[in-house]
Parts: sequence; structure tokens; C-alpha cells
Amino acid sequence: MKKVLLALVAAMLAATASLGAVTVEREAAAGGGTDSEPSATNVPGAAYPRIFRDKRVEFRIVAPAAKAVAVELLSGKRFPMTKDAGGSWSVVTSPLVVGFHYYSLNVDGVSMNDPGTNTFFGANKAMSGVEVPEDGAAADVVADVPHGDVRIRIYKSKVTGQWRRAFIYTPPGYDRDAARYPVLYLQHGSGENETGWTFQGHANLILDNLIAAKKAVPMIVVMNTGYASQADGPFVAPPSSSPHRSSADFMTFERVMTDDVIPMVDSTFRTIADRDHRAMAGLSMGGIQATDYATRNLDLFAYIGGFSGSMGFLEPEAHDPATAFGGRFKDGASFNKHVKLLWLGLGTAEGPRFQKGMGAFRSVLDKAGIKYVFFASPDTEHEWLTWRRDLNDFAPRLFK
Amino acid sequence: MKKVLLALVAAMLAATASLGAVTVEREAAAGGGTDSEPSATNVPGAAYPRIFRDKRVEFRIVAPAAKAVAVELLSGKRFPMTKDAGGSWSVVTSPLVVGFHYYSLNVDGVSMNDPGTNTFFGANKAMSGVEVPEDGAAADVVADVPHGDVRIRIYKSKVTGQWRRAFIYTPPGYDRDAARYPVLYLQHGSGENETGWTFQGHANLILDNLIAAKKAVPMIVVMNTGYASQADGPFVAPPSSSPHRSSADFMTFERVMTDDVIPMVDSTFRTIADRDHRAMAGLSMGGIQATDYATRNLDLFAYIGGFSGSMGFLEPEAHDPATAFGGRFKDGASFNKHVKLLWLGLGTAEGPRFQKGMGAFRSVLDKAGIKYVFFASPDTEHEWLTWRRDLNDFAPRLFK
Repeated sequence: MKKVLLALVAAMLAATASLGAVTVEREAAAGGGTDSEPSATNVPGAAYPRIFRDKRVEFRIVAPAAKAVAVELLSGKRFPMTKDAGGSWSVVTSPLVVGFHYYSLNVDGVSMNDPGTNTFFGANKAMSGVEVPEDGAAADVVADVPHGDVRIRIYKSKVTGQWRRAFIYTPPGYDRDAARYPVLYLQHGSGENETGWTFQGHANLILDNLIAAKKAVPMIVVMNTGYASQADGPFVAPPSSSPHRSSADFMTFERVMTDDVIPMVDSTFRTIADRDHRAMAGLSMGGIQATDYATRNLDLFAYIGGFSGSMGFLEPEAHDPATAFGGRFKDGASFNKHVKLLWLGLGTAEGPRFQKGMGAFRSVLDKAGIKYVFFASPDTEHEWLTWRRDLNDFAPRLFK
Repeated sequence: MKKVLLALVAAMLAATASLGAVTVEREAAAGGGTDSEPSATNVPGAAYPRIFRDKRVEFRIVAPAAKAVAVELLSGKRFPMTKDAGGSWSVVTSPLVVGFHYYSLNVDGVSMNDPGTNTFFGANKAMSGVEVPEDGAAADVVADVPHGDVRIRIYKSKVTGQWRRAFIYTPPGYDRDAARYPVLYLQHGSGENETGWTFQGHANLILDNLIAAKKAVPMIVVMNTGYASQADGPFVAPPSSSPHRSSADFMTFERVMTDDVIPMVDSTFRTIADRDHRAMAGLSMGGIQATDYATRNLDLFAYIGGFSGSMGFLEPEAHDPATAFGGRFKDGASFNKHVKLLWLGLGTAEGPRFQKGMGAFRSVLDKAGIKYVFFASPDTEHEWLTWRRDLNDFAPRLFK
């Protein structure tokens, strides 16, 4: 009976899909085996990509006229696909690193989305994503606990004159009580935007789960766009030779934070509007922004996190705390007294550039006697699972 | 100076974009003329698609190895592209109907997204979209008025056992006052989902503008997924031969509305939880759902809207109100007394199937002496601008 129903649903879906010349193979029609299941990122009913228990992933696309098709992960891996008699191209990859991966299908040299998945904003465009789940992990998945809302909020920037959008998490209970809450400002990476921490990062689910387990205190999380540019102002480049920099004018971004975002949040939400109840963290480019901006504005922030990004992509030569970064790390005792938490994290599978930059910054901190937490995410790359784990370790340490 | 800055930004964007093998031509690099501008739906910095003042649209994609490339609007129009020496394919269309259009690029038979645009969920997948603006229109664009939030809310369905997601608009001031608000339940069309009324429909902007102008009373708008299926329950097909039907089991959807969504909304938000302060409307498939469900549940709803969809895709044969639809429209006087507003709308450029179905339903209403508002959206198709205009006419008539 269930099979008949699924077939019926599939037939109806196929009828609808034909309107858009869609080549998504739907779950019921494909009848995937029990040793694999569709990626959690798939559009409803799409059978591919699908994940095997041993972390191999099967991709499939219909392209009868194509000469060469390959799966290209944004992280760099490439898997050529082979064509069957029906014009479908497919590949089963080697086991992938766990977590969320941006990817494209390269069809005769053109990078396209996989019509089987939802899209996620990365590399400055809407990209396909595939989720290889961790065994037994529960921190970043939807659970039977109270859920906060993520609010899509529009606000006008006085600094740039433009309308901007932020995604703002309010914790469970926010609408029922009259309490005031601390705030975490949480930044995305280069090529991403304000949607990343919700749709790729599951920040809302991670906070829901931590708050339900009483591991983290209820907090507001502001996920704001990390780009800002002032039409006629001077352009100020990022403080490093980061290949990840984008259109973000870092100084304008900081002015937007100070003059627009923080005042908007404090006047709109029931916040505790002081430094002891304000944190800032970010990933990659956002980690550079968070560590650089927050350490120059200790009157605003007492908690600081750098997820796979900290003060730029530093070279490993000796940095003297007395002079590096304007000397702001030279007085370790004062820094330790002022900053309640400096938290740094990195995936153990991240490339040498990231290891090197983080190592160089840690050596500055070590020389100055600055206390910090360092978290190494086992076996994950410069990708979202690293940053989900970072948030899961970082958030419980805040506002206590 | 400004040009230099833009070039710098473009160079940095290009550096970033190369990470993802993106072939988006960025605004500064392309240097589009002043007689056209990028579509409002584009990803930041993308120069194409771009809109001319006379409503022609220029599309462009880099695909050196392709043999044939065309733009395909979901509404049916097709524009073959031509290749230049650099491997770029482009076309300038004839003037398009104003409004938002879903589209794909067909590259050698494969339907793909345009990497230059954000994606919008339609036809059961993430699709490209292009916006051809109306001259002088201001109802559906962001304006310097107070803005409500759109909340992404997760809730568990007791009916289906699954987690679901709704987008819920709370009006400006909701967080500051203790007032209770009426609620509009607003459904998307077939192949779309709960994101449609915000990202394609601009429902939040339309309400912000109406409320600021004191044309509409402040209200909560619940934009919920129109699909529901119960794993082991009987499948109940839509009440018509609609080619737009999808996996929605209409009866399960109605149970989700009655047993899950309305109780969740009334227990979570400060609503006025009675029929006089509850409305339901929807577009296309959602219009069928709204008119069918609400007219069978007049204890729940006093305001009902069908946008390009009403009680199924009816054939124009004579329907006798005494027997059609279980006789629920037979007593016009009683219906008029109970229902404060029945509102129907259709674009004048919509196809015969839609004109015919709406006409057949109106003839039932006319025969029974049932009062209703009919709104004809000038020159728009079975697309989002019709439904934005519908909402803009419908919402001011609610809860007064």
C-alpha cells in the first residue's frame, strides 16, 4: 500500500516537475537501497545525492548530450561521473569527510547546481550542498526540545545608506517572559552571507539543544552580513593577505557594527546592553573580523571567538606582542583581566594556510601570557561541521 | 575614484569567485550601460540578468563548450541565446510581462540555474528568478517605514509526526506592545513552499507598507508549507483535475492546519483567537486549499481569499449551488451573514484554464447570491506580481 502511494505521489510530482523541465529523480521512482539515504539537504523527494553508511556519496544527473560531467566539491575534490545508456551520469565517491560540503556539477565546463538539492549561499552565489552525517551526533540536528525563532530582520544602515538584512535568533521563551538576554554576534565566512549560520550552520538548532540541556544560558544570536561598503568612502582592505577577502570593506563593516547593528539590536530586543553580556565570534573571514574588531573594542565585548580565522592569515615569522597589531596584545595581565573568554578553534584536517595562521596568532598570545581556549575539531576541514562544533563548544562558555 | 574602487572590489570578488569556478560576470567588470540595470534578484555584484527600461531583459552565461543555450521561463517562453567569440552566450529578450519570473538556462538539454541570481523555491526545486519592475510601483518594495520581522519557526506536527517549518510575519511594534493581533494564514502555490510569500511574494514588505499607510490593520501572517502526508494514512487527492497538484495530501494538510498550525500559532503568539480575527488565503494550489478548507470551516475563518485559485480547476458547465461542493454555497443569505469577506483575484494575462475555473466558481456564487470581491490584476500572468497585487488589495479589507 505504501509503495502504491509513493508511486502515486511520484507520478504527481513528475507531472508537476515537467513544467520546469526538471531532471530531479525522485525518491520513490528511484527506490534507493536501504544502505543509503538521500542527503538531508535534498529538495523534498529527491533521491540524489544519497549517502552510504560508510560516508561514500552517490551523485546523479540526467544530461544525455553532455561529453563530460564531474562533481566538484568547493573544498577542492573532484569526482568524474560516468554515463549510463539512459543518459544519466553518476558517481559513487570515496568516503567523504563528515559534515556539510558545498559543491557544483561541472557539465562540459559549466558549473551548475544539482537540481536535487536546496541551495546555500557560498562562493558569492547559490550553491548546492550535501550533508554527510556524523555517526551518533546530535548537537546540530532538530530534536524534541523547545525551539527558538530565527527572525529575518530588515534595517537601514546610517553608515552606508542601504537596507541590510540580519538573521536573529531569539531563544525559546523569549516571547513569554520579560527577561533581558545577552547577545552573541556571529559572523559568516567569505563568499557567504547572513543566511549561512542558520541554513548551513544550524546555529539555532545547536543553541536550542544546548539551552534545553542547560549547557548554555539562553541568548540572542545576531547573524549579520559581514560585507559593507560605503559608496563614496575610502576602501580599506582586510588586515592581511587573505585569499578569502571579498567585497567587505572591513572598516566600514566595523562602523556598521558599532553605529547600526548593535544599537538596532539593543533598541529592538530585550538585551543586557553591556560588554559583560556581549560576545562576538565568526568563522574564517568572520573570525578575522571578530577577533580584530572585538580586541580593538573591549569596551563593547568581553567574549571573543575565532573559528578557523583570527587576526588575518599570518605568516609564521616571529610576531612581537609589543608591536604586533598596534600592541593591543602586549599587556597579557590587563588583557586577561578584561577579556572573559578568548576562544580559538580549527579543524585538524584544515589546510596548512589555516594551521599556520592560527599557530602564528597563538604564538603571539603565548608570548604575551594571554589565556585562551583552543579547540581542535577532529578530522574536519575548513567547512561547516568544524564551525558547528566550534559553536557547540564556545556557546556554553559564554555569559557565566 | 569610484570607478577605481569598483575595479578593486571586482578584482577581489573575482579572486574569491575563482575558488568556486564561478562564471558570474560582476557588475563593475561588465560595466553595464545606464539604460539597463541588474535584476533585483541577482546575487550581489552580478551584472546579469539585467533589465532595460522597456522591460527587455539581457541574460548572459559563459559556456564555451556548449552547442545550444536558451533561457526558459517557467511560464513557457523560450529565448535561444547566441555565442560570442569569448564563449559567452547572451540574449536580449522581447519586453517581458512585469513582475517576478522563475526561469532556467537550458544548456545542451540540461536545465540549470543562472549563477547570477539568487534561487527561489518553485517547481519543487531551487530556481533562478528575475524581477521586471513595474513603473512607479511601490507597494512591494522596501520603503523607509517600520518593518516587521519574518520568523522562521520550527514546530512538530502531531498529525504527521514530522518537524515542519513556517515563516511567520509579526508586524512592526509586536515586540513593544502587549496588544493581541488578528491572523492571516497565507498559502503558497504548487511546487513552492513556505519561503515563497516572503522571498518571491514580498508579503512582509506589502504589509509593512500597508500598515505604515494605515490602509491595513497590523496583523500576523502565517506562511506555512502547503504539503502534508501521513506516512500510513490514506492518500486523498486534491478536489480537482489540477495539473498543479503535487505531493500535497489535501485532507492531511487540513488536519495539520486545524490540529497543529492554528493551535501552535494561538499558543505562541498574541493572537485574537476567534473566527472574526482569522483569515485564510492562498495562491493557485493554495487558493484551492484556502477556499475549500475555509468554506468548510466557517467556525474558524470569517475572511477568505482565492488568488488565481478557487475550489479547483472547474469546468465551465453549469454547477448547481444546491448540490455542488456538498451544497455549502446553496444558502447565499446565510453565507453572506457568516462570511465577512470572500475575495477572488486573477491576472488578466493568465491562461484559459485559470480564467475558466475562476469563471465557473463565480457563476456558482452569482447563482446563489453570494457576495464577493473580484479583482483583475491588469496584464499579469499566473505569477507572483499578480499575487502581490492581490495581497495588496485583500489585506486592507481584513479585520475591519
